Parts: sequence; C-alpha cells; structure tokens
Amino acid sequence: MKILVDAFGGDNAPLEVVKGSIEALKENKDFILSLVGDENKINEILSTLTYDKDRVEIIDAKEVITCEEEPTLAIRKKANSSIVVGLKTLKENEDYSAFISSGSTGAFLVGATLKLGRIKGVSRPALCPILPRLDGKNVLLLDAGANADCKPQNLVEFAIMGTEFARLNFGTENPKVYLLSNGTEDKKGNMLNLETFPMLKENDKINFIGNMEARDLLSSDADVVVADGFSGNIALKSYEGAVNTVLKALKSEIMASTSAKIGYLFMKKAFNNLRATLDYSSQGGAIFLGTQKIIVKTHGSAKAKTFKNAVLQAIEVAKSGVVEKMKEDFSLSGEE
Amino acid sequence: MKILVDAFGGDNAPLEVVKGSIEALKENKDFILSLVGDENKINEILSTLTYDKDRVEIIDAKEVITCEEEPTLAIRKKANSSIVVGLKTLKENEDYSAFISSGSTGAFLVGATLKLGRIKGVSRPALCPILPRLDGKNVLLLDAGANADCKPQNLVEFAIMGTEFARLNFGTENPKVYLLSNGTEDKKGNMLNLETFPMLKENDKINFIGNMEARDLLSSDADVVVADGFSGNIALKSYEGAVNTVLKALKSEIMASTSAKIGYLFMKKAFNNLRATLDYSSQGGAIFLGTQKIIVKTHGSAKAKTFKNAVLQAIEVAKSGVVEKMKEDFSLSGEE
Repeated sequence: MKILVDAFGGDNAPLEVVKGSIEALKENKDFILSLVGDENKINEILSTLTYDKDRVEIIDAKEVITCEEEPTLAIRKKANSSIVVGLKTLKENEDYSAFISSGSTGAFLVGATLKLGRIKGVSRPALCPILPRLDGKNVLLLDAGANADCKPQNLVEFAIMGTEFARLNFGTENPKVYLLSNGTEDKKGNMLNLETFPMLKENDKINFIGNMEARDLLSSDADVVVADGFSGNIALKSYEGAVNTVLKALKSEIMASTSAKIGYLFMKKAFNNLRATLDYSSQGGAIFLGTQKIIVKTHGSAKAKTFKNAVLQAIEVAKSGVVEKMKEDFSLSGEE
Repeated sequence: MKILVDAFGGDNAPLEVVKGSIEALKENKDFILSLVGDENKINEILSTLTYDKDRVEIIDAKEVITCEEEPTLAIRKKANSSIVVGLKTLKENEDYSAFISSGSTGAFLVGATLKLGRIKGVSRPALCPILPRLDGKNVLLLDAGANADCKPQNLVEFAIMGTEFARLNFGTENPKVYLLSNGTEDKKGNMLNLETFPMLKENDKINFIGNMEARDLLSSDADVVVADGFSGNIALKSYEGAVNTVLKALKSEIMASTSAKIGYLFMKKAFNNLRATLDYSSQGGAIFLGTQKIIVKTHGSAKAKTFKNAVLQAIEVAKSGVVEKMKEDFSLSGEE
C-alpha cells in the first residue's frame, strides 16, 4: 500500500510534513510513503533524517496551489502542482490508497472530486472531521464545509456514508445518526431540515435518532451528525473557537494571580492532557467521503505530529474498505 | 418606569425569578417591579423577603405556557397565561417599558411579535444574545434563533438593528458589523450570504467589515455579527456546548491526579472567575429586537442572579431609547 502526502501543503510545509510522515514509517511497517512536491527541497530535508530509504519515494511536482487561488481555476491551470500531481497519481495507480494534504481546502476537495470522480450514487462528497466525544468515543460530523448549499437528498447520502464510516472505523455496530438542528424536537429546523427529517426517518440503511442541538455535539451518544456544509462548518469552527477562548481566558486568569500560578505548576500535566484531548485536529485529518479513493484533509496549521497521525489514520481508513463498502451501498440502493 | 417579569417562566420559577427580581430593586431605585403570575404563589414568596412594598406590584395570571406547547396555538388559547398577560400589559400601558421571561422561547417571541407588533420596516424581529469578547467588550449576535429561514433583506435589517443597539448600549460610536460565514473571504458563503454580502456592503447605515468565521466570534473586533436564525443558533449553542465540554474535561483531568487536585485548591478563584466570564447567560438575557417595546429572554435554566441582572439590563436598554431610534432609522430609510 502506498500513501501519498502533499509535502507542500499548509503553513508548515515542507519541513513539518516530511518529518511527520517519516515518523509514521516507524509506527507502521506496511506501507510505502510517497512524498509529492519539489524533489530537491524534499531531498534536502530527508538528508537530515534517519529512515528506511526503500520505503520512501518522491513524486516531483514543482508548483504549489495557494489558499488565495480560486480552487477550480487553480486545479485546471496548475497541472504540476503537488495537489494535482498527487491526485493524478492516486487516480491512475491501483497501489496508491490515499492522499493527504494540508493545502488549500477548496482546491484539494474540488480537485479530488474532479480528478478521482464520485462514487456512483453520491451526488456531493462531504468533508468529515472526527471529533472527540466526552465519553472517549468519536463522532463524525458531515458535511463540515464542502457544500455550502445542500438539498435533502445530499443530507441523506451524508447519513449513509457516515454510517458506513462509523461502522467500519469506529467499530460501532449500528451507528446512531442525528441531524444538526436548532432544537431537539422533531418539528424544529429550517426548511432544509424539515424536508430532510422524514427522509432520514424512513431510510432503513440509517439508524436515525432525531435532531440534535449544537450544544450536545460532544456530549451525546451520536456516532454521526449530519448537516449542510454551511451549518456544519459553523458548528465545527465555533467549537474550535470556544476551546481556544476558554484556554486563553484560563491562561489570563492564571497569570493574574500568584496563587493560581502556583496551582498551575501542580496542574500542568492535567492542562496538557486537556489540550491534547480537545485538539481534535492533531489526531489526524478530516476524511473527504464520496470520492473513489481516500482523501484526508489536515488542518492548514498542522505540525509533524498531525501528519504522522494522518498517515496512520489514512492507512486504517484504506484498510477498512469503506470506499468499497460505500460503492456497494449506493449501487444496491439505486440512490442516484 | 415599570419592568414586567414573568414570575412563572423557566425551570426555576417562581422562587428564583421572584428572589432575583427583588434583589434588583436594591441596586436600582428608579423603577417599579411588576411580577406577572399566580398572585397567591407570588405573595407566598414575597412574604419571606424584605423589600420596598411600594415598588412592587403583582399582575395576576393563573395560566402557564409550557415549552411543549405549540407557540402560536398557546398564545391564542391561553389568554390568562403569564406571557400573554404580561405582553398585553406592556402593549397597552405607556409606563411599562420591558418584559422579561425565561419561559418557552417560541411562545414568548411569537407572542411578542403578535401582541406588541413589529417596528414599521422590520420584517422579522431577531433574538440577540450579548456575548463576552475576549478583550472584555461585547458582541451582539443576531439572529440567534427566531427565524430559521431568512432572506437577504432580513439580514440587512438585523445589521441595522444591531448597529443601533451596539451604538446605544455598548457605547461604540461606529459599530463594526460582520456576516457569519464559512470563511473570511468575500466570496465565501452559502447562497443566502452571497446575496446578502453586497447589500450589507452598499448600505450606508452599517459599518460592514466582511465575513467572519465562527471560530473568531469572541476573539475579533466585531460589535455585531449577523446570521440567519438557524446558523446563528448553531454558533451560539456550539459555543455553550464547547465551554461546558472544556470545563467538564478539565474537571475530570483534575480528579484523575492528586497533584492536579492540589493545584486546583490554589486556582479555585481563577476557575470561578473564568466560569463567570464565560457564562454569558448569567449576565442577563438575550434582547428580542424589532418589536415595539423591549423584550428580554432569559435562559430556561436561569437562577436569581440572572433575573436580577436581566431586570437591571432591561432598564438600561429601555433608557437607551433603542426602540425609538430604530423606529426613526427604519422610517427614514423607507426600508419596508
């Protein structure tokens, strides 16, 4: 199995990307790492590291797509960019299983949809971050931003894809699916939700429980939470923002008091644990579900640890056979 | 000035409502408190408290609207409910300036719109919580849930109302207005936002800065953040949920370690300060902007302290003349 990593995506590329990906080689012996990007610069970094040279290849790509570029245009114009070269390699070679990038979210997702193609029956692939539930389990939120405007049928497809992912990757037999809404009652929601609710209820491939308020995202028993990409993005980013706000506010409270500073010394480890638990983005990337192969989007500010985790995660997801299973689901159901 | 309080709204009614409202009497000498609800039960509680009897009146209302009832139906059928009686009193008497309730959000807001009427030119009143920014200032989020589906013109009106509120109540000369979106770039957004953006940009009554991501809600310089009621509700509740999640996770980290427990003893005050800072809902209520008089919605789980703060807040908002100023704005502009 070969795992592609965009060495030139994100704020800390290429150094942190290469370092992190190389670390993953030590933890899992079953894959070949393919670094995509400027060969010379990648080699420069590799020369400072110790690793098994037989398990690393470089796919040269001199261009980089920036976050400022219009995604569709950039994908068309920059044929030699690390994103386009990586996607092309993934598409054309069976031994490549997944592609990870911290680069422009828009370009990466648009490119993946255009170059890899969608699974038949999936009208809109969805971005799916995995969030840490308070009870230690995980919850998949989709769509977290790939589709700003959705139709009810898109949300039903998200629910089916999310169910399959949770079953195969969280090991949950019968994943509980919720619809993100502005209240828990069945009749709550905007027009999109009110139309979607009965369709989720009636679909026998989904264990649909009901509406969920954003405040319960991490404290409920949900394995899968379905939303349009705009609302899902707002829920995800509010969570990120609030965690940062609390940690910052806590820090300034601590700095304002001598006794709190003393207390902090005793609690340092607890704080670090907390930060690690809440920082879902360092655990790996968000999965882009619905295309023909595994796509993993890591945070733009990701560091080595995240890239290491994302590589390991991509291997697990590829091994789980979720893409193959989704193809089966959608072909059986005739959802078009 | 008379301030109406629904003594039978919320989880902790009537005891906490009455206690908190009575406390407000001591901090502000310029108003009469009107408690709405079952006279006998209110008197029972009042008999245990010390206060200036000349400054308290009871308006009897034997019925209560529950959160389970369909709002519009409940408002029509329960003419003797505390919400309907309070709204009617507010509408018909000039010396009553504001009405506060912790009861059914739906019934309270629908009732307020129906009974008080909208300001001419405001097509949809909006629910506006006041959130604590990290720099110690405030940000008004609207709409946080009154209108699940919005049109661009609704959002423009929210921006105008929010601007007026921030100017008069936060003392900000030229309030900065942002549009909640799934990215900061001008071209980000769902169809609603993409249509709304240029309208906000062109409106000379608003100091529109641009799009804001939900993660920056509390860390930016925004005085006003505009959103449709569905997205706004999700942003607000994600924030509430994340704060709770962090505090809970922190607690379990502390409990898991002896040294952290010791640390906690030194930091207890810092934690309590933090909790008080982040718990925006104890500072008062969310303002319902766009009706003919001041409506304040307190959290369903509000306790005495919140009711005290909400009464003091309602007095300030009424004194600020925001309703009168909004009437002027909308009549001048001919926004219909």
